[in-house]
Amino acid sequence: MPRFRLTIEYDGTPYVGWQRQANGVSVQSTIEDALEKLGAGPITVRAAGRTDTGVHATGQVIHIDFPRDWTALKLMDALNFHLKPAPVAATEVAIAAADFDSRFSAKARHYLYRIVDRRAPLALEQNRAWHVKTRLDAAAMDAAAKVLLGHHDFTTFRATHCQSKSPMKTLDRLDVARSGDVVEIRASSRSFLHNQVRSMVGSLKLVGDGKWTAQDLRAALDAADRTRCGPVAPAAGLCLVKVDY
Amino acid sequence: MPRFRLTIEYDGTPYVGWQRQANGVSVQSTIEDALEKLGAGPITVRAAGRTDTGVHATGQVIHIDFPRDWTALKLMDALNFHLKPAPVAATEVAIAAADFDSRFSAKARHYLYRIVDRRAPLALEQNRAWHVKTRLDAAAMDAAAKVLLGHHDFTTFRATHCQSKSPMKTLDRLDVARSGDVVEIRASSRSFLHNQVRSMVGSLKLVGDGKWTAQDLRAALDAADRTRCGPVAPAAGLCLVKVDY
Repeated sequence: MPRFRLTIEYDGTPYVGWQRQANGVSVQSTIEDALEKLGAGPITVRAAGRTDTGVHATGQVIHIDFPRDWTALKLMDALNFHLKPAPVAATEVAIAAADFDSRFSAKARHYLYRIVDRRAPLALEQNRAWHVKTRLDAAAMDAAAKVLLGHHDFTTFRATHCQSKSPMKTLDRLDVARSGDVVEIRASSRSFLHNQVRSMVGSLKLVGDGKWTAQDLRAALDAADRTRCGPVAPAAGLCLVKVDY
Repeated sequence: MPRFRLTIEYDGTPYVGWQRQANGVSVQSTIEDALEKLGAGPITVRAAGRTDTGVHATGQVIHIDFPRDWTALKLMDALNFHLKPAPVAATEVAIAAADFDSRFSAKARHYLYRIVDRRAPLALEQNRAWHVKTRLDAAAMDAAAKVLLGHHDFTTFRATHCQSKSPMKTLDRLDVARSGDVVEIRASSRSFLHNQVRSMVGSLKLVGDGKWTAQDLRAALDAADRTRCGPVAPAAGLCLVKVDY
């Protein structure tokens, strides 16, 4: 039975998150429901990143075992047909090795977090960015971010309900750059703890506000204490943009 | 009574267009209703560009006469407070000269049209771009676009119900550039005819498809005949980004 690898894009706003849950519609259940309409029975999908409620993706990756002799393009078009009008689409589909696993084969995950820092509320960017009313010092945020690079105990930046066995992770990239009213934060790691990116962004925002120095950020990291984290940044600003294999 | 100039951003998706109409909620009525809540009586607004249903703006400009001795910032914050949760916001407010007119003082209007050309449907970009399923030749579109630059009779690219007295307009910019799966078309003119940008984009798309040459585009222009226009591009891809005074 051929295994397929699919790249998935979605607007996370109307979903309870990636994972199938009893309390609402998830991205996973939306895709599984569409797959079932292909007439090959129920199919379970597994994703590279289990994004939270309201988090978006342009480069989520899933794999499925599909019991039909279909080309990748036929599968992509049929799945997209049944996904409509949900804001979820398969943007790439390819046949994968039998042992390919979207979650465990991943070598790096890349997230983009967007802040719009301006006085006026968001109109076109509603649910697509974090609105911060005061101007942030993006250069100070970028410099401080380097404190978090490398192999650390990220307990401070980990949700209390995180199910990862270890809080040790290696952060490969954390860059902050301004473009007009938009502050873009790019984070890359083999894997992240639950809420890690939003926790780091929330703490970096305190640096951008002038409330924390890079030294404060380092002290928060070194404390390995969840209560030392800045307020977690909202989900709407976060997007899973790419997974490397 | 001081006159104010306001820059307005909006997601045009839920509106019947800029102009107040009997058949639904317009951006204009949304702003006028919010202004009335400021307690200074009914206030009529006038915009630089009367965008159609589904067309967006990041740089629409309006002016109002406001019978209170308020600072520009106070007016901006109060208006934005009453606009919530509509996807409409005033991003800049300034006191203007008594004879400033958002429509008649405008020296140039700048529009951006976005096409996403890929096989997969749009998820995050739903209602924000024109989805074209086949790859367009953006370089050919850019070269052909130059045919339309300058002072011409744009009857071919004008809605049949356009109320402008003359079809003569001067097009100052029409550039097409690709960035990944996005084809961006930038158009600038002192003023445009009704549906002119979407009509030009619809015809340029035929060039991108290889169905028209630059010569065909020139012949369509020279014919000054509405029936020679390509299919008008959908509203969702269009955004009024800037007005110069």
